[in-house]
Amino acid sequence: MKKVGCFLFFLLIFGAKNNISVHAETYIGAQIIIEPGQSPEQIETWFRLLNENGMNVCRIQMIENFMKTSEREWDFSLFDCAFNAAEKYGIKVFATLFPSSKNNSVGGFKFPESEEQLTQIADYIGHLVSHFKTFPALYAWVLINEPGTGGVVPQNEFAKKKFDAWKAKQEKPLYNSKDYTLLINFDNKKFLVDYNTWYLDWLAREIKKYDTGREIHVNNHAIFSNIAEYDFPAWRNFLTSLGGSAHPSWHFGYFNRSQYAMALAANCEIIRSGAGNLPFWITELQGGNNTYSGVNAFCPTAEEITQWLWTSIGSGAQGIIFWCFNPRSIGEEAGEWALLDFQNIPSDRLLAARNVIRTIDSHKQLFNQTKAPESPIHILYTRESLWAEKQVQYGNTSDNNYEGRLPGGVMKSATAFFELLSENGIISDLGEINEFDWNKSDYTGECVILSNQISIPSRNWNNLEHFVQNGGKLIVEGLTGFYDENMLNLNAVGTQLNKLFGGALSEVICIPGDFNILYGNTQMPVHLWKSYIHYTTGKPLIREGANTLAIRNQYGKGSVIWLPALAALGAERSKNKTPLSDFLRTELQEQIQKFSFIFTTHQEGVIMRTLKTGDGYVSVVINKDKKSKNIELTGHSFRPTVLFSDLNAKVSRKNINIAPEETIVIYWK
Amino acid sequence: MKKVGCFLFFLLIFGAKNNISVHAETYIGAQIIIEPGQSPEQIETWFRLLNENGMNVCRIQMIENFMKTSEREWDFSLFDCAFNAAEKYGIKVFATLFPSSKNNSVGGFKFPESEEQLTQIADYIGHLVSHFKTFPALYAWVLINEPGTGGVVPQNEFAKKKFDAWKAKQEKPLYNSKDYTLLINFDNKKFLVDYNTWYLDWLAREIKKYDTGREIHVNNHAIFSNIAEYDFPAWRNFLTSLGGSAHPSWHFGYFNRSQYAMALAANCEIIRSGAGNLPFWITELQGGNNTYSGVNAFCPTAEEITQWLWTSIGSGAQGIIFWCFNPRSIGEEAGEWALLDFQNIPSDRLLAARNVIRTIDSHKQLFNQTKAPESPIHILYTRESLWAEKQVQYGNTSDNNYEGRLPGGVMKSATAFFELLSENGIISDLGEINEFDWNKSDYTGECVILSNQISIPSRNWNNLEHFVQNGGKLIVEGLTGFYDENMLNLNAVGTQLNKLFGGALSEVICIPGDFNILYGNTQMPVHLWKSYIHYTTGKPLIREGANTLAIRNQYGKGSVIWLPALAALGAERSKNKTPLSDFLRTELQEQIQKFSFIFTTHQEGVIMRTLKTGDGYVSVVINKDKKSKNIELTGHSFRPTVLFSDLNAKVSRKNINIAPEETIVIYWK
Amino acid sequence: MKKVGCFLFFLLIFGAKNNISVHAETYIGAQIIIEPGQSPEQIETWFRLLNENGMNVCRIQMIENFMKTSEREWDFSLFDCAFNAAEKYGIKVFATLFPSSKNNSVGGFKFPESEEQLTQIADYIGHLVSHFKTFPALYAWVLINEPGTGGVVPQNEFAKKKFDAWKAKQEKPLYNSKDYTLLINFDNKKFLVDYNTWYLDWLAREIKKYDTGREIHVNNHAIFSNIAEYDFPAWRNFLTSLGGSAHPSWHFGYFNRSQYAMALAANCEIIRSGAGNLPFWITELQGGNNTYSGVNAFCPTAEEITQWLWTSIGSGAQGIIFWCFNPRSIGEEAGEWALLDFQNIPSDRLLAARNVIRTIDSHKQLFNQTKAPESPIHILYTRESLWAEKQVQYGNTSDNNYEGRLPGGVMKSATAFFELLSENGIISDLGEINEFDWNKSDYTGECVILSNQISIPSRNWNNLEHFVQNGGKLIVEGLTGFYDENMLNLNAVGTQLNKLFGGALSEVICIPGDFNILYGNTQMPVHLWKSYIHYTTGKPLIREGANTLAIRNQYGKGSVIWLPALAALGAERSKNKTPLSDFLRTELQEQIQKFSFIFTTHQEGVIMRTLKTGDGYVSVVINKDKKSKNIELTGHSFRPTVLFSDLNAKVSRKNINIAPEETIVIYWK
Repeated sequence: MKKVGCFLFFLLIFGAKNNISVHAETYIGAQIIIEPGQSPEQIETWFRLLNENGMNVCRIQMIENFMKTSEREWDFSLFDCAFNAAEKYGIKVFATLFPSSKNNSVGGFKFPESEEQLTQIADYIGHLVSHFKTFPALYAWVLINEPGTGGVVPQNEFAKKKFDAWKAKQEKPLYNSKDYTLLINFDNKKFLVDYNTWYLDWLAREIKKYDTGREIHVNNHAIFSNIAEYDFPAWRNFLTSLGGSAHPSWHFGYFNRSQYAMALAANCEIIRSGAGNLPFWITELQGGNNTYSGVNAFCPTAEEITQWLWTSIGSGAQGIIFWCFNPRSIGEEAGEWALLDFQNIPSDRLLAARNVIRTIDSHKQLFNQTKAPESPIHILYTRESLWAEKQVQYGNTSDNNYEGRLPGGVMKSATAFFELLSENGIISDLGEINEFDWNKSDYTGECVILSNQISIPSRNWNNLEHFVQNGGKLIVEGLTGFYDENMLNLNAVGTQLNKLFGGALSEVICIPGDFNILYGNTQMPVHLWKSYIHYTTGKPLIREGANTLAIRNQYGKGSVIWLPALAALGAERSKNKTPLSDFLRTELQEQIQKFSFIFTTHQEGVIMRTLKTGDGYVSVVINKDKKSKNIELTGHSFRPTVLFSDLNAKVSRKNINIAPEETIVIYWK
Repeated sequence: MKKVGCFLFFLLIFGAKNNISVHAETYIGAQIIIEPGQSPEQIETWFRLLNENGMNVCRIQMIENFMKTSEREWDFSLFDCAFNAAEKYGIKVFATLFPSSKNNSVGGFKFPESEEQLTQIADYIGHLVSHFKTFPALYAWVLINEPGTGGVVPQNEFAKKKFDAWKAKQEKPLYNSKDYTLLINFDNKKFLVDYNTWYLDWLAREIKKYDTGREIHVNNHAIFSNIAEYDFPAWRNFLTSLGGSAHPSWHFGYFNRSQYAMALAANCEIIRSGAGNLPFWITELQGGNNTYSGVNAFCPTAEEITQWLWTSIGSGAQGIIFWCFNPRSIGEEAGEWALLDFQNIPSDRLLAARNVIRTIDSHKQLFNQTKAPESPIHILYTRESLWAEKQVQYGNTSDNNYEGRLPGGVMKSATAFFELLSENGIISDLGEINEFDWNKSDYTGECVILSNQISIPSRNWNNLEHFVQNGGKLIVEGLTGFYDENMLNLNAVGTQLNKLFGGALSEVICIPGDFNILYGNTQMPVHLWKSYIHYTTGKPLIREGANTLAIRNQYGKGSVIWLPALAALGAERSKNKTPLSDFLRTELQEQIQKFSFIFTTHQEGVIMRTLKTGDGYVSVVINKDKKSKNIELTGHSFRPTVLFSDLNAKVSRKNINIAPEETIVIYWK
Repeated sequence: MKKVGCFLFFLLIFGAKNNISVHAETYIGAQIIIEPGQSPEQIETWFRLLNENGMNVCRIQMIENFMKTSEREWDFSLFDCAFNAAEKYGIKVFATLFPSSKNNSVGGFKFPESEEQLTQIADYIGHLVSHFKTFPALYAWVLINEPGTGGVVPQNEFAKKKFDAWKAKQEKPLYNSKDYTLLINFDNKKFLVDYNTWYLDWLAREIKKYDTGREIHVNNHAIFSNIAEYDFPAWRNFLTSLGGSAHPSWHFGYFNRSQYAMALAANCEIIRSGAGNLPFWITELQGGNNTYSGVNAFCPTAEEITQWLWTSIGSGAQGIIFWCFNPRSIGEEAGEWALLDFQNIPSDRLLAARNVIRTIDSHKQLFNQTKAPESPIHILYTRESLWAEKQVQYGNTSDNNYEGRLPGGVMKSATAFFELLSENGIISDLGEINEFDWNKSDYTGECVILSNQISIPSRNWNNLEHFVQNGGKLIVEGLTGFYDENMLNLNAVGTQLNKLFGGALSEVICIPGDFNILYGNTQMPVHLWKSYIHYTTGKPLIREGANTLAIRNQYGKGSVIWLPALAALGAERSKNKTPLSDFLRTELQEQIQKFSFIFTTHQEGVIMRTLKTGDGYVSVVINKDKKSKNIELTGHSFRPTVLFSDLNAKVSRKNINIAPEETIVIYWK
């Protein structure tokens, strides 16, 4: 490893013009790849370019292998160089722990393999943190790059001992699935959640031994499939912000390219919900072409970069860090993913980002006080639903006619609702069921949507009852509540949910592919399941001959709508979303009134994200459809100012004209 | 495990109205799922409902884990409750052994893993059988649920020792493939067949230590692929009836949904052939929706339930047991497969079954004396053909243009003949080559069909010669006889089969997909193989230029038709079956005359099953085509009475009018 | 094993008519399968038939298991019989070593598993070679059947020890990727290449202990994917000729059936390039139907056999040996692949081969002096490109829209250029980059094409510079040079290649599927990558707005054309090859002038191979298109004589009329 004469170099150029622009609240930046082989000049260049393009934050992998020169010796000079350049150009640094391992991958390992390795990691943290805590540019420690194993508990002695200790501490739950003998055991899944929390907490504690004043951060990836491994509320105890990696080519495989902006919005909502009162970040956002790495290769267009930045900001992200600014030079990912081209010239993607940054800079007072508005609509998922789905469908090779029961059906159902609401201009939360505040005494005007959450654990039954009892509206779709947390089928044995829902399922009928059910005079497309309800207190909403396909149940001060068909996936798959949209707009009238304005009709492919700012609002509107749209808004009294438009937006109080791929940012006051 | 106060409960309600209906001969019923957690009232309800819906038999998994409360203690009360309820409502019980195992699955394990486990199984049988043999409702012991491993010999010490002992006992066969050095060894396959037989026999012997008077039964599943693991004739020594599991979603993957009734008929024939003089059952028949379990999810319609019941009965089944009556409550399959809905209300499927039962009840005298007629047409398969196919094509990922050489090609060829004959109203046997009676002195009027049975073992060569010599007609199709039992290619080295067939193959030409050959003036679709015959005594039937594609050979009192192309698969794949049908009707004139009546022409998608009863016949006719059919019958003097029709059947002596999905049952006298 | 009374048998028939025809230069023959079980008469028959069909060479697997009768005893009689018959009928024998192994497959093992096995192999060679070296028919020893493991280093102690020894001997390379820390290690790949060479060399040395006068040969298979395992130049030290196996059903999976003749031509060129000054052979050529073995089953037509033979001869092959003459009798491949039918009657394929042989026999003086002309166009591939591709894309399941980045993209790109040139009647070399002669002082009129060779090792940079400096033309296409040999991305860090190319990439943009770029007024289809060039000395050839898509750079006496898009795959996939063809014909004017004649325009599906013979030329022209072609030739002064035509060829000085599937051989003088 080459020692860079970095300190001296900086001394020499220290007098240079310092054109740092500081954002008080919104951070946009990029990963700087630091590798032995780079010269101080190169490193300096990248920080200068960050600055010149308005960026104010970066992230660096603190790779142990690039620092530790022998058993006892450390040479931090390469990274010193980067931190000094960051300071010089006013760039805050997210420093990601990256301890060495004999089987390390480009993404880093996820758990230690032995006590020895744990000791080695502690030693690495000691050296690393002691050294870098003195650098003013240091902003945050990132505990690990992308925790999450795809659901697999590591098979080694260390993990086994941890499991045994964990298992010994588990108390027998009070709820025992009505004395039915438990045949399936999710201990591995539960352990993995806690093991993840334990390791992150341990890393945070090690850091705090040496440095107590920094932000502590971690970024989750492939959220739609890895989500069942995380206990975000528990992480809030040691994190100061929560983040996500959002590379469509790696992480958005459930969606097609025209849905990536929506998927990113959903990703933001999931992270935001997990973060609670902490700020959230998009810690990695695909910045360039993935040539040989990644799964579904593509290069974001400038328009997509614009869309993604505004989507993140419009979802309330405190900051966005692209992956990456300069490309890796060697190994997997070499020459890929970057915002800069190979000559360090800004790509059209970086220019697009700069335009967004400039807009924000020009309206600092607005963006510094933005706040994601509290939505009255909450789409909730349960980890147990993902576990159950994977348990019974693992390895199934059925075709797409069975999409709803294949792994992914649970989260695709939830995001299909999210998408449909977004296309009405309606913001909804998207979070894990335990992240929701079940302790309020009044839920009037609020709505919870459980879309195909096939397992509803018993600990949430009282929550749901309390919610409806106290004025909440509950929309239950798909096979939600088919199982409890032990895969006890709740339809047969009966639970308090039956009372809440106003009935029980009588049958589930599989019809591969898609078909219509008649709601009023409208054929509503649904997917895979036709389920019949045996209603008690509920009143039929949709009937088919003698069978009841949906009911409404008044319960306490609230009500439940129960439609046990895959309506959201049916809408999504058929690209005929209007029937479900109309259904929802009718059912959500009370909630919709809480929004100052939404679209008057469903707009295929258009999403709107709206933030509160002072007395007004900032709206981000993106059109992913192939047609220009003339969107009418519901009645309101704000006057629009277009803050940003990458084409020829026409915006009036009542109308937004938006071209395909266009992003518009509007300030309403 | 909860103790149910079952005995007392029954005492209290013992005076209740007892509306048991008894069938002397035909049994229709369903699996009752018994699980800890159920109340006596629930259990009672299911047996009452069986009875109310005319059912007279059930099956119960006797799960050791639900009975054994400690190392030495057993609590049978949950199951006592079920047996008492069965008695009360006149329901006979098939009790399935279900010993515990540390790695048990929902389907149960297939072989013991150790001597210790064998001892444990014996102990379980001792306790179980001693206890339940006194219950009057007990009708049969089912030795195991669905033996069959998909062809895999278990990899453990116990199996290895068994293999070694087996191997030591094998005698060197007299036939040694003409001194060619054997390169492929099917010992594992042969051992698996015998190992299966050994274990089932062992289980039967253990049972008989405690209970000698019961029926002994076992049910095979996924018959079209597992069939090469079974030696049914050997099982007749310890069984009193043979059964099959027929869940299209798990087991009929070779077929599409409109073929399920035909596939069930073929399944029945295979089991019937295996059973010999023993009665046969459909021990498991899909009764409801498979939601998250199984492969190709679907829910049978009421019409399908009707079709399947009548198909089974029309094939001569003694009984049919649906899987299942009440759904499992927990774990895989929870809330699925059932005839009852979640409120214990009969589904339309159960109502359909009840209609069938009522028809049978109303015509007991007819159905009690039905007998599957002896067909003069015998489609035979060889285990060795399946072994060879799997040996050389395992893991092949070629597309559907190569269907005939991919695993499954052998059995699909045999069933395609079965289907084609069924669609002419012609009944044929379908059995393993050694199940056929080769010891008769006269085969005049009989026909054996070997459809793409690529391996014909040497031990059957004399059989085939004897059959033809003595008046039989042999139809040889596809690559039948390409190999002997050691994968010696018989075309090159020559065997007595060449003399029998009247020639030898000269070449096999692969033409991926389908093409036509010209038979008379008709283009006959065939699949994949164009083979040329070098004929000696045979006379060309189909020629193409200088090449001979089919021959007829007079041999002794009989004859052989040899068409070494995949004509049955060609017909099936092209949906142009008339040419092959016409060919067969011409060739099978002698056989066809033995049927009192068949269709005058091929009827796509219609199958007819006919039973003898007294002086007359009972015919089941099912139309799976999308069009109504007006079917003309060949000349006969019987007068029809429609016993059952689920639509508006019109039946005259000469004609049957049948709508799509309709099932008609006709009594001819 | 049966002893054949072979010697005596030959004595008895020794006086028979000996109609041997001898070719001085061109060998055509077939594999004779020798198996215990065969009679001397059978064996004699096959050799007689070889002779009667004009064949003069055969190949035999010398299977140890068929010779070694006990620990110490050998019985060679079966094979003696074959060698005597070969002598009698004037057939030269290629004898393939086939030592035994406990886990041997039909293709033989590729490496010894232990020292013990190595000793056993040496012992086998000792016995085998000592015995057979005295047989006059023996022509060549084939060291092994088809070395090549699909890139997998065997996992056993023996290989591990060899690896460790190899590793210890590796010197640290001078070039270290500019001090970047190497993250990916291709040691396994490099070792495998050397391990292969070591083992083959060892085998040759063992043979030479007993027999020094014979030809030493080896045949490589599945060349397009296995190619990165071979170091052909190193093999020239112990081989006297190099060969290849070319079974489309096993080996040409990158191509469709209409491309097989072209793929065979490419295969010939690769082997020819590897052979250097040694002769090359097609040691195995699919001769018949693959029924149950192989991947994509098919049976060559007589026309294909004709095409393949002439393609091989027209590529300069010294000999062609079909697989096989008589079929194997037992095990995998039994009854398959043969030129003879099951009655030992020549198939139409063998008759086709005989016609070719007769043509050659009738024009011995011409064919004996043919020489593959030295082409001025050299398509080169690098092993490192295949390694890198596999490293990063292993297991990718992306669809065909990503074909260019999936494993195979590298070689498909090279062969697409080869195909396009062939369809212009232009012959090109196709070889590994180190097989090219980089040591000349003048390359005027020569062209090297690097098509999507993603890794260009540093050791070749000077070569390329020297080549262009001294008058060569370099065409660089696709992502050629994206990496160095350590997967250092060369665009970012800069190398001497930038100077040579006249610029550097600025960006690579992935566009899944295919799209057009505008070259002059022509839309040129390209696949997957749109890359932008930051040019320095190079001059833009293709621009798109502000971006440069291709450049031309004058460098020394030569020039470089750089088109970093997948133009060859784009042409191939879109079946719109004219734009790229026109581009090439313009750029290759200087090279084209070196050919006496080529097609005046691109001819889809037609390939021409031309050999020099004396003052004239022999051209093989094959039309694989579905349309007849009237092909105009560029100006020349030779007069044509049609030596061979399997249809109604019309050939004049200026025009060739050729029907679909036709092969024409023309002598121009």
